[in-house]
Amino acid sequence: MENIIFGKNAVMEALAAGEREINKILISKNIHSDNKLSKIKELAKNKGIVFQFVAKEKFLPYAEYNHQGIIAQISPVKYQDLDEFLEERHENSSLVILDGIEDSHNLGAIIRTCVCAGVSGIIIPSRRNVQVNATVEKTSAGAINHIPIIKVNSLVNAVQKLKNSDWWVVATDASADDNYYDINYNDMNFALIMGAEHAGVSKSLLKLSDFVVKIPMLKEFNSLNVSNALSAIIFETVRQKLKKVK
Amino acid sequence: MENIIFGKNAVMEALAAGEREINKILISKNIHSDNKLSKIKELAKNKGIVFQFVAKEKFLPYAEYNHQGIIAQISPVKYQDLDEFLEERHENSSLVILDGIEDSHNLGAIIRTCVCAGVSGIIIPSRRNVQVNATVEKTSAGAINHIPIIKVNSLVNAVQKLKNSDWWVVATDASADDNYYDINYNDMNFALIMGAEHAGVSKSLLKLSDFVVKIPMLKEFNSLNVSNALSAIIFETVRQKLKKVK
Repeated sequence: MENIIFGKNAVMEALAAGEREINKILISKNIHSDNKLSKIKELAKNKGIVFQFVAKEKFLPYAEYNHQGIIAQISPVKYQDLDEFLEERHENSSLVILDGIEDSHNLGAIIRTCVCAGVSGIIIPSRRNVQVNATVEKTSAGAINHIPIIKVNSLVNAVQKLKNSDWWVVATDASADDNYYDINYNDMNFALIMGAEHAGVSKSLLKLSDFVVKIPMLKEFNSLNVSNALSAIIFETVRQKLKKVK
Repeated sequence: MENIIFGKNAVMEALAAGEREINKILISKNIHSDNKLSKIKELAKNKGIVFQFVAKEKFLPYAEYNHQGIIAQISPVKYQDLDEFLEERHENSSLVILDGIEDSHNLGAIIRTCVCAGVSGIIIPSRRNVQVNATVEKTSAGAINHIPIIKVNSLVNAVQKLKNSDWWVVATDASADDNYYDINYNDMNFALIMGAEHAGVSKSLLKLSDFVVKIPMLKEFNSLNVSNALSAIIFETVRQKLKKVK
């Protein structure tokens, strides 16, 4: 249980100290409201940390710990800030933006692929997307420590910021007209948005994107697993980079 | 337990009838040798079905069944025969050969990717590679029913047969000189060999291959997950096919 903090005092202290990266705070719906709980919610809000009220059954795996109906899930990595990332100099760089990826194994495989393909950073939203946890760390084969993982509260704001900083935004969508290999990824900074397997990339993000591309399917049967889809596209950008051709 | 057959009589009958596809037969090391067991081994040998002697602890999950120290694992798909596959007419077709893939999730993701990329078949060896099981079926999102899966007892023999039938053989190896996108995959039937993440493709298969290619890594850190590596390569062959260019 090294990645979990149990109980009101410990969670409050962790929030106040700000040393450890908190993915999410889970609070039992049956918990009594008191000053400590209010303080925890206030601190979490100020720091943009998600807290969720959940059924008390969620705490069953932690029965042997004195959790008092509240736990904080700790990330094995320190997330980076998008503003800090954008202050660095970037040239012909790439970012991957994940919109609604729920499976830890997929996130781990994606991080691993991104490191191999020289991607400069990965952006994940603080809600409706799996956070970096112990399973992600393991599936990534340690890759989580080799790439900045940037957590943002709003993907729409993040994409706006990227566009204002002269990044090009490429979203994937099964109904796009262009194939992913018809874009020239050289000589620009680009961010590639990958969506969840069924829902795809959110409409608000598609609207903001400079390009929308698809992977052509030679057999219409089902969509690709998202980490495999990402791999096909990101290594096409590597091919273009290394061959200096479209 | 719909994918398992328990006990000497049931396993012997399943072998004799040959209706259901048996992945593997597991026999407890503590089992008493008798006529039925000899018959089972003989039938399995004749049909090229692998049987393994394992510690009795392997049977703990099946304690509630009357397994008598012997079970047969059933495949959710009917495997195809390589000779039958080669009798069909193939033109600009592709095959994927898996050499030592041990993880069910990887095999499932690979099958799914192969279907989307229009691959004509997948060859797996009967030993030292995961077989198609319930986890593979689920991870493949049903793709196992949309592509022939060919099981062979010897990959070396299979590759020899392919070469004799004018298929080109491309193996992947991290120390190759050529990048995967430097090969022209058009206007030929080709088989792509993917190896296990650590061991890679066996030396005997590398020797037989017409091309050996690598995926260039922009950051040297670790190898890619095998399903992501396959996706990068196989969609490059799709790109070449659709653009009719190298």
